[in-house]
Amino acid sequence: MWISFTTDYGRLDGFVAACHGTIAKITPAARIIDITHDVPPGDVARGSVVLAQTVNDLPAAVHLAVVDPGVGTARRPVALRAPGGLLVGPDNGLLIRAADALGGVTEAVELRNPAWLAPIVTRTFHGRDIFAPVAARLAGGAPLADAGPAVEPAGLVRLPEPVVSQGDGWLEATVLSVDRFGNVQLAAQADLLPAGSTSRVADQPAVIGETFADAAPGALVVLVDSAGMVAVAANGAPADAALGVRPGDVLRITVER
Amino acid sequence: MWISFTTDYGRLDGFVAACHGTIAKITPAARIIDITHDVPPGDVARGSVVLAQTVNDLPAAVHLAVVDPGVGTARRPVALRAPGGLLVGPDNGLLIRAADALGGVTEAVELRNPAWLAPIVTRTFHGRDIFAPVAARLAGGAPLADAGPAVEPAGLVRLPEPVVSQGDGWLEATVLSVDRFGNVQLAAQADLLPAGSTSRVADQPAVIGETFADAAPGALVVLVDSAGMVAVAANGAPADAALGVRPGDVLRITVER
Amino acid sequence: MWISFTTDYGRLDGFVAACHGTIAKITPAARIIDITHDVPPGDVARGSVVLAQTVNDLPAAVHLAVVDPGVGTARRPVALRAPGGLLVGPDNGLLIRAADALGGVTEAVELRNPAWLAPIVTRTFHGRDIFAPVAARLAGGAPLADAGPAVEPAGLVRLPEPVVSQGDGWLEATVLSVDRFGNVQLAAQADLLPAGSTSRVADQPAVIGETFADAAPGALVVLVDSAGMVAVAANGAPADAALGVRPGDVLRITVER
Repeated sequence: MWISFTTDYGRLDGFVAACHGTIAKITPAARIIDITHDVPPGDVARGSVVLAQTVNDLPAAVHLAVVDPGVGTARRPVALRAPGGLLVGPDNGLLIRAADALGGVTEAVELRNPAWLAPIVTRTFHGRDIFAPVAARLAGGAPLADAGPAVEPAGLVRLPEPVVSQGDGWLEATVLSVDRFGNVQLAAQADLLPAGSTSRVADQPAVIGETFADAAPGALVVLVDSAGMVAVAANGAPADAALGVRPGDVLRITVER
Repeated sequence: MWISFTTDYGRLDGFVAACHGTIAKITPAARIIDITHDVPPGDVARGSVVLAQTVNDLPAAVHLAVVDPGVGTARRPVALRAPGGLLVGPDNGLLIRAADALGGVTEAVELRNPAWLAPIVTRTFHGRDIFAPVAARLAGGAPLADAGPAVEPAGLVRLPEPVVSQGDGWLEATVLSVDRFGNVQLAAQADLLPAGSTSRVADQPAVIGETFADAAPGALVVLVDSAGMVAVAANGAPADAALGVRPGDVLRITVER
Repeated sequence: MWISFTTDYGRLDGFVAACHGTIAKITPAARIIDITHDVPPGDVARGSVVLAQTVNDLPAAVHLAVVDPGVGTARRPVALRAPGGLLVGPDNGLLIRAADALGGVTEAVELRNPAWLAPIVTRTFHGRDIFAPVAARLAGGAPLADAGPAVEPAGLVRLPEPVVSQGDGWLEATVLSVDRFGNVQLAAQADLLPAGSTSRVADQPAVIGETFADAAPGALVVLVDSAGMVAVAANGAPADAALGVRPGDVLRITVER
């Protein structure tokens, strides 16, 4: 009944509405939660992170996601089943982290049943012509296996794994995400943060705390964020600017006991 | 039951929500699909294009649209019937292209029934005080003729027609729209594109293809877009920047067989 | 049944969707009207103005608002009852103007009932872990008094009062808000505007009118805006840029009869 929806379509054009409308035509009772449509154009890695970190805060849903720089090429359109939900989108790595967050892929199909798609499938708007119709049918209760032939979960495209390494009193990890407030999230689960109360992030001092106000105004704090990941924030200021980092960079945190 | 909603209100203020709320008060069961609220302020031509290209992807609906630089002046507030849906907004050209896309205007009324409007109609927020209440009543099943006196469809304001001219191996047309990805859509239907496989757009080489990846990375491709119009795109890059064009400019495509 | 939702979360991340999802899990029948999520980060004053000016255009609702630079500190999470609706958010001044617009606070509680909150309350995302769950339960009909212990309405945090002073032929008031179109709204109700037909705003000439087109293109007009407040606009242009003002500045209007 619920569909979540994530794209890089922006909101300047009618693309998001065209997909909402397509779903409304097929399964009018479906209810849609828009995650974001402001993924930077073509940024599959960013889309995969936002999706993966949000799905567990949503009710059981079909998660429709389209960040698809290869639209109209040989990359496969797929739908995946995980214990916690269904996912629909291109097989370019966008869905896999979210599928892992929902318990891992237990079944995968390639979207090749023409009866499930738009009568004419354009080469440039698979969101409207392939993915939204499939998400609508799955939300309406149609069986996944009817969407097309099974594919091997192990053969699905995965994005490169981020760097996460850890030693005595230090942690090094890829910056996974920077949010609107400039909070810098690392690709490291909370339990990888060495114990201690003060630290250095890159070459800058930081306290280890639990919320933004544990640091002085403008100063850095290392904390566990709301997704359970190690993050670096600044109190009332953007930490990404203070550190000069962005997603994909590797950041080193040293901790003093 | 469905209402689509298009404005230049942006999302920084409460204007869009005030209209959603107004509709909810009058017809709580109405469901709203927001097309966009990021039409540039006062840009009626841009609003008309987004609306016209989206309406046929939506279920049967009342299409509410407000881009209204003349709010509070003598321009008429209207509602239109077309075979494919109803439209509500200012009579300044905003609705006409969408009405044409829905089969053409078969009935038009001026919104002058005070019982349908807000008790006090301000001079600056007709979205909330005139257009949303009328859209809500129409979505609730009230007859169009009750909204006000009939007006002559032929007398409705129309926007200037774009340039579209074509000859042996060439096509010249106004740029209708540039989307978030920088794809440049011309005011020419697909069948006006001369046959061939390579072309020049303005003074730059382009292939003729079906999707973005038919061109080399960064190179131009002329294709038929998802709205059925001739468009110029670049593979993984914004074509508008490469061509230096924006909506309203006229672009010439020459085709070699 | 209705929940309105106002934050500074932006739409780049999944925060807004996580709150929508949290509500959907607890009270699936609740329907949400997003007011705005583009309050500048941490700008409690701006959030309070947008919320206060929109609530009366909405159906009876639980108004959920989170602009919360002190998240995770001692500031109290609260829910308020007013004759026109319920409000949920941090006790930092964000909710008070809206509560006043809804008739004034008649009951207030601190959100301390663990059974109403997320099983684990993080220190950085109270929107998802405290405020959205409470709003969902209230929208589902749970009694306010069950959310936590009563607090004294008079002890709630209030924002500084804006300047409003008026004399013979002049009005001086704080700029409360600048909207997307650059219209400059003052913290003065309509009845404070001295009678007359021409005026000076700061050192610039302006007509006194009822809508934008009462001024020449680009020229200033003083009018009563759609929220019933004195405002300065320019016909087809942003008045804030012409005047060089922004929210918090004090503007003086002199009127000639």
